[in-house]
Amino acid sequence: MRRPRRKAEETREDILATAEVLFRKQGIAKSSIADIAQQLGMSPANVFKHFHTKGALVDAICDRHVRRMVDRFGSFDDPAPAPERLPLVVCKLMEAHLQDIRDNPFFLELIFLMPKTDLASGQRYRDLIEELFRDVISAGIKSGVYRCDDLDAVTQHVSAAFASVLHPVFLAEATEEELKARCAGIAGLVNAALQSPLAK
Amino acid sequence: MRRPRRKAEETREDILATAEVLFRKQGIAKSSIADIAQQLGMSPANVFKHFHTKGALVDAICDRHVRRMVDRFGSFDDPAPAPERLPLVVCKLMEAHLQDIRDNPFFLELIFLMPKTDLASGQRYRDLIEELFRDVISAGIKSGVYRCDDLDAVTQHVSAAFASVLHPVFLAEATEEELKARCAGIAGLVNAALQSPLAK
Repeated sequence: MRRPRRKAEETREDILATAEVLFRKQGIAKSSIADIAQQLGMSPANVFKHFHTKGALVDAICDRHVRRMVDRFGSFDDPAPAPERLPLVVCKLMEAHLQDIRDNPFFLELIFLMPKTDLASGQRYRDLIEELFRDVISAGIKSGVYRCDDLDAVTQHVSAAFASVLHPVFLAEATEEELKARCAGIAGLVNAALQSPLAK
Repeated sequence: MRRPRRKAEETREDILATAEVLFRKQGIAKSSIADIAQQLGMSPANVFKHFHTKGALVDAICDRHVRRMVDRFGSFDDPAPAPERLPLVVCKLMEAHLQDIRDNPFFLELIFLMPKTDLASGQRYRDLIEELFRDVISAGIKSGVYRCDDLDAVTQHVSAAFASVLHPVFLAEATEEELKARCAGIAGLVNAALQSPLAK
């Protein structure tokens, strides 16, 4: 009884992998479900059975990328004090994003194609990024080096402050050197803010 | 002798205004120089005489928007202390950007169409925004409330930290309420940082 289910999962993976190659080659807008089906030698109806819309397919591809990227950070258990960890985490995160957008330029197209679609992967991405920042900030609070009354609010503001080193739009238009300097500069501001008696 | 020149300037203005209406209606990608010429009842060659490429035309339109927006801030000579001024300036700037992107959704298209073209208006925009932040920060330093060794570097980092309330990509996907909370939150971080003994 298990066999058909396993096959469905394999088919799903095949569709995702094929769609990703096609998106990489000719962009999202120019790749249709029919093109993807043709590449796989299956009927468009079969693809639709797994992904009801192209949006759902794009969402699943983004989700895979987000999970893979964040998984690499799950093991990043650095015992260094938070003010030292923060710039390192940001810089590693920026480099991972930069690699991903260089390998998959269709992420930039996605932002323009689907600004209003609210892909579930987008929200999950923001949650995972905030979790990474929350980890560093709460470690800093526990060790007494950061002051902060409202961890959730501060985490959100810190994540937002780093948008210009993480969002594909900025990664596409700046050099790696500029991005690194920006990571260090914003981390410096955030570190000064969170260690300040004025921090809320 | 002045007449032909004045006429050239008027023609230039007519082309810009017509192109902008067309971009607003059908987007940049779908509007050709030929369409713009047709709307004006002139030959495409005549339009090309004023703007050698569509990129140059787009650049000139962006430039007009940037100048108009920043001009509104030139007169914003608030005597309030820098830590009070900063969140106000950011919030006003965010609202002006939001209005501009709502009235002209083609700005979002621009970012996707021309990420690598390095429009001159883009650099001028960044310079003008940095100038606004530099004004507030240097006023804060003069009055002794902000501490900062390197005004230029700090201005750049502060500008970058506010990207998520100014860049069209973020304005298009967040609500006005979220954006206001983000303005206040990041301004709070920057204020705490610049008033901290740790500020560099």
